Amino acid sequence: MDYMEIDRANGRAMDEMREVALTREVLKHALGSCLVEFGDTRVLCAATIEEGVPGWRRASRAGWVTAEYAMLPASTGRRVPRERASRKGRSMEIERLIGRSLRTVTNLRALGEYTVTVDCDVIQADGGTRTAAVTGAWVALHDALMAWVEAGKIARLPLTGQVAAVSMGVVDGCELLDLDYREDSRAEVDMNLVATDTGEIVEIQGTGERTPFDRQRLGRLLDMGDKGIEKLIGLQNQVTAFRDED
Amino acid sequence: MDYMEIDRANGRAMDEMREVALTREVLKHALGSCLVEFGDTRVLCAATIEEGVPGWRRASRAGWVTAEYAMLPASTGRRVPRERASRKGRSMEIERLIGRSLRTVTNLRALGEYTVTVDCDVIQADGGTRTAAVTGAWVALHDALMAWVEAGKIARLPLTGQVAAVSMGVVDGCELLDLDYREDSRAEVDMNLVATDTGEIVEIQGTGERTPFDRQRLGRLLDMGDKGIEKLIGLQNQVTAFRDED
Amino acid sequence: MDYMEIDRANGRAMDEMREVALTREVLKHALGSCLVEFGDTRVLCAATIEEGVPGWRRASRAGWVTAEYAMLPASTGRRVPRERASRKGRSMEIERLIGRSLRTVTNLRALGEYTVTVDCDVIQADGGTRTAAVTGAWVALHDALMAWVEAGKIARLPLTGQVAAVSMGVVDGCELLDLDYREDSRAEVDMNLVATDTGEIVEIQGTGERTPFDRQRLGRLLDMGDKGIEKLIGLQNQVTAFRDED
Amino acid sequence: MDYMEIDRANGRAMDEMREVALTREVLKHALGSCLVEFGDTRVLCAATIEEGVPGWRRASRAGWVTAEYAMLPASTGRRVPRERASRKGRSMEIERLIGRSLRTVTNLRALGEYTVTVDCDVIQADGGTRTAAVTGAWVALHDALMAWVEAGKIARLPLTGQVAAVSMGVVDGCELLDLDYREDSRAEVDMNLVATDTGEIVEIQGTGERTPFDRQRLGRLLDMGDKGIEKLIGLQNQVTAFRDED
Amino acid sequence: MDYMEIDRANGRAMDEMREVALTREVLKHALGSCLVEFGDTRVLCAATIEEGVPGWRRASRAGWVTAEYAMLPASTGRRVPRERASRKGRSMEIERLIGRSLRTVTNLRALGEYTVTVDCDVIQADGGTRTAAVTGAWVALHDALMAWVEAGKIARLPLTGQVAAVSMGVVDGCELLDLDYREDSRAEVDMNLVATDTGEIVEIQGTGERTPFDRQRLGRLLDMGDKGIEKLIGLQNQVTAFRDED
Amino acid sequence: MDYMEIDRANGRAMDEMREVALTREVLKHALGSCLVEFGDTRVLCAATIEEGVPGWRRASRAGWVTAEYAMLPASTGRRVPRERASRKGRSMEIERLIGRSLRTVTNLRALGEYTVTVDCDVIQADGGTRTAAVTGAWVALHDALMAWVEAGKIARLPLTGQVAAVSMGVVDGCELLDLDYREDSRAEVDMNLVATDTGEIVEIQGTGERTPFDRQRLGRLLDMGDKGIEKLIGLQNQVTAFRDED
Repeated sequence: MDYMEIDRANGRAMDEMREVALTREVLKHALGSCLVEFGDTRVLCAATIEEGVPGWRRASRAGWVTAEYAMLPASTGRRVPRERASRKGRSMEIERLIGRSLRTVTNLRALGEYTVTVDCDVIQADGGTRTAAVTGAWVALHDALMAWVEAGKIARLPLTGQVAAVSMGVVDGCELLDLDYREDSRAEVDMNLVATDTGEIVEIQGTGERTPFDRQRLGRLLDMGDKGIEKLIGLQNQVTAFRDED
Repeated sequence: MDYMEIDRANGRAMDEMREVALTREVLKHALGSCLVEFGDTRVLCAATIEEGVPGWRRASRAGWVTAEYAMLPASTGRRVPRERASRKGRSMEIERLIGRSLRTVTNLRALGEYTVTVDCDVIQADGGTRTAAVTGAWVALHDALMAWVEAGKIARLPLTGQVAAVSMGVVDGCELLDLDYREDSRAEVDMNLVATDTGEIVEIQGTGERTPFDRQRLGRLLDMGDKGIEKLIGLQNQVTAFRDED
Repeated sequence: MDYMEIDRANGRAMDEMREVALTREVLKHALGSCLVEFGDTRVLCAATIEEGVPGWRRASRAGWVTAEYAMLPASTGRRVPRERASRKGRSMEIERLIGRSLRTVTNLRALGEYTVTVDCDVIQADGGTRTAAVTGAWVALHDALMAWVEAGKIARLPLTGQVAAVSMGVVDGCELLDLDYREDSRAEVDMNLVATDTGEIVEIQGTGERTPFDRQRLGRLLDMGDKGIEKLIGLQNQVTAFRDED
Repeated sequence: MDYMEIDRANGRAMDEMREVALTREVLKHALGSCLVEFGDTRVLCAATIEEGVPGWRRASRAGWVTAEYAMLPASTGRRVPRERASRKGRSMEIERLIGRSLRTVTNLRALGEYTVTVDCDVIQADGGTRTAAVTGAWVALHDALMAWVEAGKIARLPLTGQVAAVSMGVVDGCELLDLDYREDSRAEVDMNLVATDTGEIVEIQGTGERTPFDRQRLGRLLDMGDKGIEKLIGLQNQVTAFRDED
Repeated sequence: MDYMEIDRANGRAMDEMREVALTREVLKHALGSCLVEFGDTRVLCAATIEEGVPGWRRASRAGWVTAEYAMLPASTGRRVPRERASRKGRSMEIERLIGRSLRTVTNLRALGEYTVTVDCDVIQADGGTRTAAVTGAWVALHDALMAWVEAGKIARLPLTGQVAAVSMGVVDGCELLDLDYREDSRAEVDMNLVATDTGEIVEIQGTGERTPFDRQRLGRLLDMGDKGIEKLIGLQNQVTAFRDED
Repeated sequence: MDYMEIDRANGRAMDEMREVALTREVLKHALGSCLVEFGDTRVLCAATIEEGVPGWRRASRAGWVTAEYAMLPASTGRRVPRERASRKGRSMEIERLIGRSLRTVTNLRALGEYTVTVDCDVIQADGGTRTAAVTGAWVALHDALMAWVEAGKIARLPLTGQVAAVSMGVVDGCELLDLDYREDSRAEVDMNLVATDTGEIVEIQGTGERTPFDRQRLGRLLDMGDKGIEKLIGLQNQVTAFRDED
């Protein structure tokens, strides 16, 4: 089969990521913070650490890592109301995804009875906010844990690896990496891949609500995803020098 | 690699589904209803149709299919409180999944300006409640739409196919189909597959929170899933004679 | 005065109950469970026991019995929304009634510091859901307490008697026992009687919103109610052998 | 059987009501208002009329009468929190009772498409707040409707009769009329009677949570209740001259 | 500049307060209570004392004084719904203002670990409910603390002074003291002054949403306010004899 | 009296503002946006315009300007939970203040039936977030209205002036302008001044919860405030050239 192609903004190739930037230490009060940009998508990730763990975790003597996700009302083209009296299922799905992803690479026993909360606030949205959030949240988590080590609260960095995320999808029959909002809103297939620095899958979520897809297409989309993950892992390493810490 | 094996309840093979039963017409008032059983997991699915569509759908002149999911408090070993003031992210994820799955095989334009709500209430939980729910919900949806055709409200059945779901996972390194609660609660990898009667993927959700997994394992789990889907599609057809309707 | 008569479904007499069925052990995880049927009305009652009592009961050193009541959305002819953000007064009244009724025949001191919750979920509604719920809830409570005795948690069954409930009403001037939905929805007088196995009144609730009634009518309705209660108490005894336990 | 007697505050007889006072026109803005006092129990009842009816009443072309009930935090010995995020079942039961009672004597068709809301705010509580509320609410309702007639909004007073309420109970085996808080809090049987000026029963609610009761006791309690109702109906008439209006 | 004048109800002068009345001991159960009237504005203030302080105050070993403010639905010309699921910003501002004002003149250390709650319920509203509430709340607070001293719970009255409040505003260019509702609703400038018995400012809130104002006008309005405060302080002293206690 | 002095961070004078920066056009999707910085306090202000006005404004045929205020959880030293189920009184006070301030300088009739919402999200908090928010919100409002003019939606800029805000306070007896968090948290007197470009007062809020203050001190604090307002008005003009538009 011939791979189909469509025109993408800025002449991007089908399997090319947008410009990605990870800026650390953007907040004075947070232990760890990172402004992550995937093109025009900008998410502010901030990690704070509190003593103790949620009630249901207490028996475990281990720590906990959780995440919150929200969009600023003016982050999108049409103002989104704040989630107050009731939560949106979408936001809850995303914050659960971020939390699971971060816990996969955290040694909760080594962390000890602390709770790390990583707040991911979308400043500007242009598709891929959840994948940007996972990628930036790892940097904020890393920096907060590093600060905790430096403060002598824990003996060593309780991170077993890196985790990053990227989206893939199908638009007009064409398989794409890292969709922007215009692409995402008319995609037939929509997929998110969270993976570690060893290339293993932490989370895969794919939906073909408009067009179910077969195993071959799944394979090609994952190949693309692997490329994106590799690039993001490299960037994380560049700003944190995580691998050099080992 | 040698496939690993563990002992399963009732001597089930690794890639064998539990006993599945689909019982139709279990409720007097609902247009369509189905009690679905995957082993000890029992979910009551009921479809009702109301005039009109949600506000944001109105411009489309098409119909809408949505789902609600809840567990009866006594459905599990430890009583689960009802979700009242606040919803659980897990339940909202599941009802969004059921809704998307059903819409994939529904021709919303042919349905016209009606809203179908499929309520999936877990009477007894033993793992796989969401996959059982999708599978039973399709039967309830089918029957409700059939009743609507018979009532002359719509000209023909607005269903383009069948949809069913099954879970796969990894326990002690062993790949399994259709996990029960005991297996599910200690799985390293947890995956759900929703697919159509043509074998195409509608939704894939896999998480390796405890143990990330590679592409080979993903492939083997999906092979198992295909087997399960095929069996469920067959059973749905048996009770509804959907394919004979064509 | 001549007693007036109307035609009832299935040729029922004015003072005749519908078919009543009490099916025990319908749920795997609940300590006690009972599916109660009053004609087409079906309520699933499940009793679970948890350690401890609500804060305001703590000083008493005694136990607590409470109930929750909910209707499945598809249990009625017109889908009823789940009670989430706000509760309905009707449901709260019913669950308070069930709780009071069960406590009347429970020795809370002998129970000790445990809380029994009896969940009454209406699977199908055709009038009399609250009276069916009280009647079935007693069976679920009995079985849960029995299991607690068998588990050695309490020395003996802390039940001092049985409790059952039935409805009476006036339709087109005609006095009726155990109204179904069609009758109930146009009743001039609507009454519920909860009574013990010794025939004493635990609770009487009568409302003549459309037509106030006099003492003579109250007397005749209570006579009918006594007949219904007697039958229900007999059935409870048949399935639980409670009186033989003494 | 010998009637038993206990000592009551102020040397009250067993079947004697407390001092009752009905003061009209206590609020400047409300169409109708009444401060009702049953001994130390004081409830401020205020009726307001708004155009239109609730959505579900619209097809009927008739009006609606509803009530709200609340206790001021300092109305009792121990401060009661305001009901904000969640309602108490008790309050909802009471406001439903008041609403039903008032509607029994209102000709909703003659009222036309208006909604009357009677707010019953307990200024001071000493037992019997719900029966005082029903009794005073009728006066407020009467006055508001009268004002509506005078304003030419409706042709004639759409009231078909009067309605009042009183409590009865059993304390230490002794049957009492109009219990104060000290009596009510240790009553074995607790009963409320709402009745019309013709002596017919609008509502009876009796509960023997601590001690079930028999038909003879029910009869004697209702005899007492009739006496109380008669007195209250007389007082209502005295302040409103309702019967003279006929 | 010539001072402008407008016609006020009852021929009041521009800098004249309405009739003010402070009636103590209006509630049987509250430790301290005061019905405050500023013309037709009537607010019932009741102070109750509970053991302990809010969690965030615990380390301080000092007490706490807080207030709640609500309007009865029928207190205004157009029925106001009760604040249940969501609070109004206006009410929260007012109760925060009352609390701060009372705390300014309370020695929280001398109070010890008790929480005083002053409930201010508006029975009838005609402008100036918040200033009436502050003024009456101080009397209720005084009486509750006095009762606490008499009960031997605290050694001496932990009040360092008196606090009262009054409103000022500009209507049609004319500067007014103590605005009633008709004046308030069309005021260009709206100001509230809370001050102590020594004439010092506890709180000043002024808003010129319709017409910003200059420093000269602010000065003249404060001069008027001082006059009002002096009168209110005098009345408080008259009913409580606070200054004689010293 | 000798003015007292304390040491301030960065050697600031008592009546000197922190570094102020106003950066426009920081968000791609918002019609108007401004990142405002008062030292380390950073607030992101974004204005969006929607068709129509709130229901209660409809009769007026005029537009509406409103504001929302929130703090990002990691904006402060100790993580602040998001306001979801319940709002904080403080936040509601602040957003009401911002809305009133902006409306004072907006010609709502000239705006026409549009609603402008200015979201003020605190990225980093170091005292004075509400005054920074008012100051930045005006710039965002200006830019959004300007865009609306350019889009031909309204004929001319419906702004009648500028509005800015600054805080003053007393710390250790010393009067200060523009308090940072360290100063604010131990201030005896805390005041906020909102004023226009003509120097008139739009809003004054002063509280002496710990130490009531006299008229002389009020005067000196307002003098300081005037200096701050003048500087902020100048900066707003510099970035928007508002006065040149006239």
